[in-house]
Amino acid sequence: MSEFSLIKKYFSQVGSKNPLVKLGVGDDGAILHPCDQEQVIVMDTMVEDVHFIKGAHAHDVGHKILAVNLSDLAAMGATPAWATLAVSLPEDNEKWVAEFVKGFGNIATLYGVQLIGGDTTRGPLSVTVTAGGLVPPGKAVLRSGAKAGHALYVTGIIGEAGLALGFRQNRFQLSGQVLSRCIQRFDRPIPRVKEALAIRHLMHGAIDISDGLLADLVHMTEASQCAVRLYEDKLPITGAANAMSKAEDALDFILSCGDDYELLIAAEPESEAELKALLAPLQCNLQRVGEFVAGKDSVLVKRDQREVPLVARGYDHFGQ
Amino acid sequence: MSEFSLIKKYFSQVGSKNPLVKLGVGDDGAILHPCDQEQVIVMDTMVEDVHFIKGAHAHDVGHKILAVNLSDLAAMGATPAWATLAVSLPEDNEKWVAEFVKGFGNIATLYGVQLIGGDTTRGPLSVTVTAGGLVPPGKAVLRSGAKAGHALYVTGIIGEAGLALGFRQNRFQLSGQVLSRCIQRFDRPIPRVKEALAIRHLMHGAIDISDGLLADLVHMTEASQCAVRLYEDKLPITGAANAMSKAEDALDFILSCGDDYELLIAAEPESEAELKALLAPLQCNLQRVGEFVAGKDSVLVKRDQREVPLVARGYDHFGQ
Repeated sequence: MSEFSLIKKYFSQVGSKNPLVKLGVGDDGAILHPCDQEQVIVMDTMVEDVHFIKGAHAHDVGHKILAVNLSDLAAMGATPAWATLAVSLPEDNEKWVAEFVKGFGNIATLYGVQLIGGDTTRGPLSVTVTAGGLVPPGKAVLRSGAKAGHALYVTGIIGEAGLALGFRQNRFQLSGQVLSRCIQRFDRPIPRVKEALAIRHLMHGAIDISDGLLADLVHMTEASQCAVRLYEDKLPITGAANAMSKAEDALDFILSCGDDYELLIAAEPESEAELKALLAPLQCNLQRVGEFVAGKDSVLVKRDQREVPLVARGYDHFGQ
Repeated sequence: MSEFSLIKKYFSQVGSKNPLVKLGVGDDGAILHPCDQEQVIVMDTMVEDVHFIKGAHAHDVGHKILAVNLSDLAAMGATPAWATLAVSLPEDNEKWVAEFVKGFGNIATLYGVQLIGGDTTRGPLSVTVTAGGLVPPGKAVLRSGAKAGHALYVTGIIGEAGLALGFRQNRFQLSGQVLSRCIQRFDRPIPRVKEALAIRHLMHGAIDISDGLLADLVHMTEASQCAVRLYEDKLPITGAANAMSKAEDALDFILSCGDDYELLIAAEPESEAELKALLAPLQCNLQRVGEFVAGKDSVLVKRDQREVPLVARGYDHFGQ
């Protein structure tokens, strides 16, 4: 099948029609209508053998590459609207494309995202998405918005995607429902889009956890020019992770491996009840895990009350 | 150097500050101001060993990946504003990044483009850019706008990039200034942004020549639901290409290999003088090379007046 037939057959109508889009796939570029809202633009790439294993299900890859972009939009408090997609494929593999588009299209439809363009080329397997979302002027949430006195909250559960990765790397033993759930979390993360929109007015700062809780928390404190006290015993980790985390390095792994796609949020301690009430209908737990403080010395308060310096340990593509 | 230091050092301030941009590189996403213009979104990828050879100069790759995106914006009649960039690098190669950013930054600055975000990952060498441009509501130029009765124009010179590619593939012999010029055309194409903006009000339809003149012309007639008569003896090809094109397949190659980044334009025959007058200050030649006609049967009129069916022969990543 030719590049152009492939595009026509699989990519011309993916996701929901979005009212911002005047012209979608098919010309040199797409056209968006003028808009009185601000637009948030995000971009993420996934490469075979780096972000997903050789032989990963195309459906999962399609889901995840859009999900991780939507997670960035969520962290900014933006309503997803459109995406462009670049796919590099080693060979003409129509079956792969068909499965990929299913995964991509399902989550696009779920979040009202229209695929408006992109590029299909030959090359080592990789996918890149740029996504755009809308936010009322001045209402975007930045990672730089945390201030001393804010509480630090985290949505959902941390570490399950990490457990799946650890299992695949033969680091941890998992089985049954726990394994399934962890694998699901790693392969098909659910971005916290609805949650972020529900509580946007209460978030002073936010970041999504893609590089690992510790690394992203440090990104947040650096951007916000403050420090944080994080309490190990408050961390929302499941029974499985909890059992493993008794080995010190397992907790390190869980807090560093990333791929959680939960949100770290800076908000007033007084808004905790309201935050929880707004998130409850979305079945999203919110856990207060620390507080932002003045200065530069972030600490992790261990279960035994020891305080250790909190340093970024996360996935770094070119790190040591 | 870590991924984050790399981003901070090389990618945080690239190109011109653009007034559309409220927040650039550094957060989960960039923020654009509300805008009363339409926005055109384009995306293109370049992969090592596919779009550029192993060992290609990073400066050229940086130039070209933005240039080809700006060429798409030009074909739509949009004024470039911003770009996001995904870079996949096999290893931490700071020198490559520094050179790449120079090439990218030079052309970004030249066209008023601000780099607002992106992603840096480990992986086989490839670069993907999404770019956005502005156009007054209703003024974007589509490839579907050609109508029977319009003349077909092409900007500049066709085939020089193809000659460079043919030379590198040991297909053609070239040397001296001609070789230098052809290589320059292939490695550092100049998008017709200023030209498109100067004549936007006179263009009824346009497409940029990236896949090859014949292929892109067929894209245009298909989208416009009409046919075209293209005159071989009108084609703006240089002396070198002209000499080679006496061998029939050399002309085929030149019209099919792409990478010209000139514009194919549908406009009234009566506007030819005005088009030329508007393009003259930009030192851009415009050649009338054919006419759009009703029906589906496009023809190439050969130098000896034979008429042969015009079929798309261009670069297709998954073609036969």
